[in-house]
Amino acid sequence: MKGFAMLRIGSVGWIEKERPACGPLDAIVTPIAVSPCTSDVHTVWEGAIGDRHNMILGHEAVGEVVEVGSLVKDFKPGDKVIVSAITPDWSSLEAQAGYPMHSGGMLAGWKFSNFKDGVFGEYFHVNDADGNLAMLPEGMDLGAAAMVCDMMPTGFHGAELADVQYGDDVCVIGIGPVGLMGVAAAALRGAANLYAVGSRRNCCELAKEYGATETISYKDGDIVEQIMELTHNNGVDKIIIAGGNVDTIDQAIRMLKPGGTIGSVNYLGSGDYVRIPRVEWGSGMSHKKIHCGLMPGGRLRSEKLAKLISTGRVDPGRLITHRFTGFDHMEESLMLMKDKPADLIKPLVII
Amino acid sequence: MKGFAMLRIGSVGWIEKERPACGPLDAIVTPIAVSPCTSDVHTVWEGAIGDRHNMILGHEAVGEVVEVGSLVKDFKPGDKVIVSAITPDWSSLEAQAGYPMHSGGMLAGWKFSNFKDGVFGEYFHVNDADGNLAMLPEGMDLGAAAMVCDMMPTGFHGAELADVQYGDDVCVIGIGPVGLMGVAAAALRGAANLYAVGSRRNCCELAKEYGATETISYKDGDIVEQIMELTHNNGVDKIIIAGGNVDTIDQAIRMLKPGGTIGSVNYLGSGDYVRIPRVEWGSGMSHKKIHCGLMPGGRLRSEKLAKLISTGRVDPGRLITHRFTGFDHMEESLMLMKDKPADLIKPLVII
Amino acid sequence: MKGFAMLRIGSVGWIEKERPACGPLDAIVTPIAVSPCTSDVHTVWEGAIGDRHNMILGHEAVGEVVEVGSLVKDFKPGDKVIVSAITPDWSSLEAQAGYPMHSGGMLAGWKFSNFKDGVFGEYFHVNDADGNLAMLPEGMDLGAAAMVCDMMPTGFHGAELADVQYGDDVCVIGIGPVGLMGVAAAALRGAANLYAVGSRRNCCELAKEYGATETISYKDGDIVEQIMELTHNNGVDKIIIAGGNVDTIDQAIRMLKPGGTIGSVNYLGSGDYVRIPRVEWGSGMSHKKIHCGLMPGGRLRSEKLAKLISTGRVDPGRLITHRFTGFDHMEESLMLMKDKPADLIKPLVII
Amino acid sequence: MKGFAMLRIGSVGWIEKERPACGPLDAIVTPIAVSPCTSDVHTVWEGAIGDRHNMILGHEAVGEVVEVGSLVKDFKPGDKVIVSAITPDWSSLEAQAGYPMHSGGMLAGWKFSNFKDGVFGEYFHVNDADGNLAMLPEGMDLGAAAMVCDMMPTGFHGAELADVQYGDDVCVIGIGPVGLMGVAAAALRGAANLYAVGSRRNCCELAKEYGATETISYKDGDIVEQIMELTHNNGVDKIIIAGGNVDTIDQAIRMLKPGGTIGSVNYLGSGDYVRIPRVEWGSGMSHKKIHCGLMPGGRLRSEKLAKLISTGRVDPGRLITHRFTGFDHMEESLMLMKDKPADLIKPLVII
Repeated sequence: MKGFAMLRIGSVGWIEKERPACGPLDAIVTPIAVSPCTSDVHTVWEGAIGDRHNMILGHEAVGEVVEVGSLVKDFKPGDKVIVSAITPDWSSLEAQAGYPMHSGGMLAGWKFSNFKDGVFGEYFHVNDADGNLAMLPEGMDLGAAAMVCDMMPTGFHGAELADVQYGDDVCVIGIGPVGLMGVAAAALRGAANLYAVGSRRNCCELAKEYGATETISYKDGDIVEQIMELTHNNGVDKIIIAGGNVDTIDQAIRMLKPGGTIGSVNYLGSGDYVRIPRVEWGSGMSHKKIHCGLMPGGRLRSEKLAKLISTGRVDPGRLITHRFTGFDHMEESLMLMKDKPADLIKPLVII
Repeated sequence: MKGFAMLRIGSVGWIEKERPACGPLDAIVTPIAVSPCTSDVHTVWEGAIGDRHNMILGHEAVGEVVEVGSLVKDFKPGDKVIVSAITPDWSSLEAQAGYPMHSGGMLAGWKFSNFKDGVFGEYFHVNDADGNLAMLPEGMDLGAAAMVCDMMPTGFHGAELADVQYGDDVCVIGIGPVGLMGVAAAALRGAANLYAVGSRRNCCELAKEYGATETISYKDGDIVEQIMELTHNNGVDKIIIAGGNVDTIDQAIRMLKPGGTIGSVNYLGSGDYVRIPRVEWGSGMSHKKIHCGLMPGGRLRSEKLAKLISTGRVDPGRLITHRFTGFDHMEESLMLMKDKPADLIKPLVII
Repeated sequence: MKGFAMLRIGSVGWIEKERPACGPLDAIVTPIAVSPCTSDVHTVWEGAIGDRHNMILGHEAVGEVVEVGSLVKDFKPGDKVIVSAITPDWSSLEAQAGYPMHSGGMLAGWKFSNFKDGVFGEYFHVNDADGNLAMLPEGMDLGAAAMVCDMMPTGFHGAELADVQYGDDVCVIGIGPVGLMGVAAAALRGAANLYAVGSRRNCCELAKEYGATETISYKDGDIVEQIMELTHNNGVDKIIIAGGNVDTIDQAIRMLKPGGTIGSVNYLGSGDYVRIPRVEWGSGMSHKKIHCGLMPGGRLRSEKLAKLISTGRVDPGRLITHRFTGFDHMEESLMLMKDKPADLIKPLVII
Repeated sequence: MKGFAMLRIGSVGWIEKERPACGPLDAIVTPIAVSPCTSDVHTVWEGAIGDRHNMILGHEAVGEVVEVGSLVKDFKPGDKVIVSAITPDWSSLEAQAGYPMHSGGMLAGWKFSNFKDGVFGEYFHVNDADGNLAMLPEGMDLGAAAMVCDMMPTGFHGAELADVQYGDDVCVIGIGPVGLMGVAAAALRGAANLYAVGSRRNCCELAKEYGATETISYKDGDIVEQIMELTHNNGVDKIIIAGGNVDTIDQAIRMLKPGGTIGSVNYLGSGDYVRIPRVEWGSGMSHKKIHCGLMPGGRLRSEKLAKLISTGRVDPGRLITHRFTGFDHMEESLMLMKDKPADLIKPLVII
């Protein structure tokens, strides 16, 4: 079979591979629509997860089941499915402890285009099909559905980690596709004032549609000062971090109320240390809580988020700015994520 | 001063009373807009809290401060304020334990028209002004603001007690003004399918505007059966009870998934026992959680909910179906709550 | 193979059966030590779970693995293991939602001697071996280890459901083996005054050793009155229910503070309704929370509780009052549980 | 009146001051037993809270009420009381939000020897007496009672922030008096393996009595390596930090499991930044939670912890290694805290 792969750090292309084998609990799926992710770009061009050779890329896919293992009960060939980017081993000790995304080791619930081939192939392998696939609801837009794989659960997890409550003032730092979902998630959990930090015009506009009450740009000066001014020097109750780098937590602590919570879902690809400013952290006694995490993944999560789309609570399909048809657009769509033209938020390739 | 009072069980009228005295922490407030509540009706005509003589009624008021005690720091005469229906003693052991509404004894955070005169007088007394008043935001509609006193915090507490999470299927039983706020609150906390149980047409219409995906009427058959059919026999994840009687929990348990949660904010005025059906409760092992409670009350709560109005997240002013101007409409507005004509949801009297 | 079975309601005996088959994720285990449970008695003589024919009894066993499926990674023949009484399907939607004990349906995590043969046979089948077995720690007393299957996790879950916090006054109603573990669990989570309600002398003595500060007997008068007197009419903060019947919640609500929590792990075998007294429940506004549930089950839970034994935090082996050697003592030990002689708490049969 | 005061940075001595005035909610208390704290040392010799002139020191006192304000209901002259080191303004917005220790601003619940005179005077002032005093239980040892002011609530808050659960492996870093209480608190919340990091012999011995299963010394090599070896490279589930400096979080993150939690109650007096190692923090996706905070303070907390002493759950009196009688031993006892001789844990001065 063919797959669009990372050949080595800095290089991508089409390769030929054996179609993956299907274990008793597993499914083999062929993609219907896929979307490249910024982390694919980090993987290939920054070597974020180390070197990989001829590894098929991609972890966001809606597909059709072509084969299931003997123990799979709820899916059969022909079923159209949403595939979670994170596919935990649900009986692991970590999953039993409430952290399925770390099943088998820190972050090891992330398998596609990390420990095994991703979803940009003619076929791909899904471990524990009953636990990690979700039926594609009848009539759901493929763009919206593809956002249930990663963008939506990651952004929504940010709002959960930040523990947004009714009437909270919330700041979302970074409003790429994940951050935009963080904005929608904060609004959908009861945020009052909702400050979105970003500078791209289309992202700012969409942030407002998703519920931001104000957008703030790095270009207009220090974002901490801007937030402190907007909040009459009180700071915000909760912060979702979906962009930036190892210095973003520093800014977040400075604009957060005592007792507030940071929920960070941003992948930090470089830097030795994340730094917490001591004085603004109350000399270590501020109750400014720092929570971070990889999205949970799995079937239940996909089903619940898909229901938010079906019931009209949120439309993640709005993230899709570029739609392609045909597998041969994979490279083009990945290069878009790499080059980030001004009008891009997220591309979709329908196969 | 004049006040509209319960004279005795079954009887109301205007009385003359001394203007209340202001302690060092307190405020004296004159009402600007008030709203009668179903619990005023229960108090007078059902004797729900026992007999009372010449007690001024009412606990929902927006007002103007006319006097403050020597220790009050944040409010002064002339300030326009939202007055929480529940005014806790914040330093009590119960408040320190996280249950301010039970400060001084079970439900004893409810003082207006219960242990002391209510807000339907020319002046009324507010204990701990700094802790229990909130500034009326500039330009806020008086009807919306008056709903911050009781209807909105009670309905929103229902969604908190029920612990609504992203993508939950939720049923709200009872869609009078509190239940309608429960619907809005569930939608604003991430409910997916949101079933509102009620039969009055205007309430059903408003429930849909507040986010209900479906309305269900007692008149169309057993509500448990209707919910089970709509949920393909799975039941719902969470239930908010804002109406009914001692038998409503029985219905709720029957339509709730294992691991689900009931949040009940309905005042149960009669009956010896609430009953839980043993088999449907998993023989006492179902993890179907039963939470109930009086709204929290206090300044922070009022401020946070008011911010949800200011930022356009919810408009509780939609509850107001009848607006009167002038104190002499007090009796008329109370009788509306008693008689519940078809077009009534909630009346407001602007003074 | 031989197994000690329920032949039909009211009748037990030895039967011959096929040795169970082992699926790819499963293990076949032969028991080393087993203990009968009161629920075996309910099953046989009260028909609590309905009729069963020739079903091997028992769900508390320490054993030795004799066979594992091809996908089992962490266990192999010869391993000595603690077998959880509750063996969830970990990738089910219910487990993903945090309720593994209800995987596949309410209470359906309970499989042994319910949906399939139990552990009182020469061999028994364990689904998802990696998720549901735990290594028997070197040198651990078999009596203590056997209590990790059900008695200890059930009692400890009671303290979790009741949400015991530092300095809480706690009442444990029912001090059979589960309730005694509830006492130990409450003490081990920071209870201050710890009232154990029971009447059997040996249980009362052991309750004190496990941390009860006082024991209370039904025989000395109404237990609600006794608790109210001991607490100067304040009631207790938290209640664990591990005995009684459908009327026990009624008593618990009457002795609980507003804002308090009941954690019930008692199997309610008969009665149509559990009743909540309306007035003492604050007319449905008391924040007296009612939590109930079947123990979680699974490997992590067993490992964590076993560590509490290894580190000397608690010794559930103290529950074992009668030790037998040889499989032919199965009936005798079960009849002990049925007849409950004065000196019995829990029997153990070493095979 | 006389008071033992910080004269300026680096200098202490006795001064004469006016006896403080008593507001309507307040109490004036005369000390019976006091204890100096390491933070008094930081205040004077490190200028940790900035310069102060002629400020009476001390925040740990058991005393006798000599005067109460007109609104105080539960205390009267002659009552013997435990005085919380942290005395919140309970009706503040921060307290209503669940963070009383930050009432009036970050850390501003800490008033004694910070914003106003402390407890090392003949008389001292307590704001909100009903909310911040607790009756000294009849017959309680004064040393144990004095530890309820700060050492015990701070150490216990560490275990709460770290969210210790049954069977967790826990590491307590720093075993001075607060860390020793953290050890006791972790054991009393269900820790299994409990590693105490410290090097002073008497502290290590007491740590074992309070429930540590192992002590680890900085002197025997890198503590991260020691913990990883002891936990077979798994790391611990939870960490309580009660000592060290801005680099301690770095070590903690390296020895913590994904999904684990750090509860830090250590005052960080110097350094610009606390640093989180990026890779070990899972590139910002590890779910390694960082919680820190000042102890809650107030009456309920004092009462609940005092009950743990009365019921024999913990004896914080074991911390007292040096007992003096007479006010003139104040300087000697403070210098002990400064010089930390090998046999010191905590001194007590009975007046």
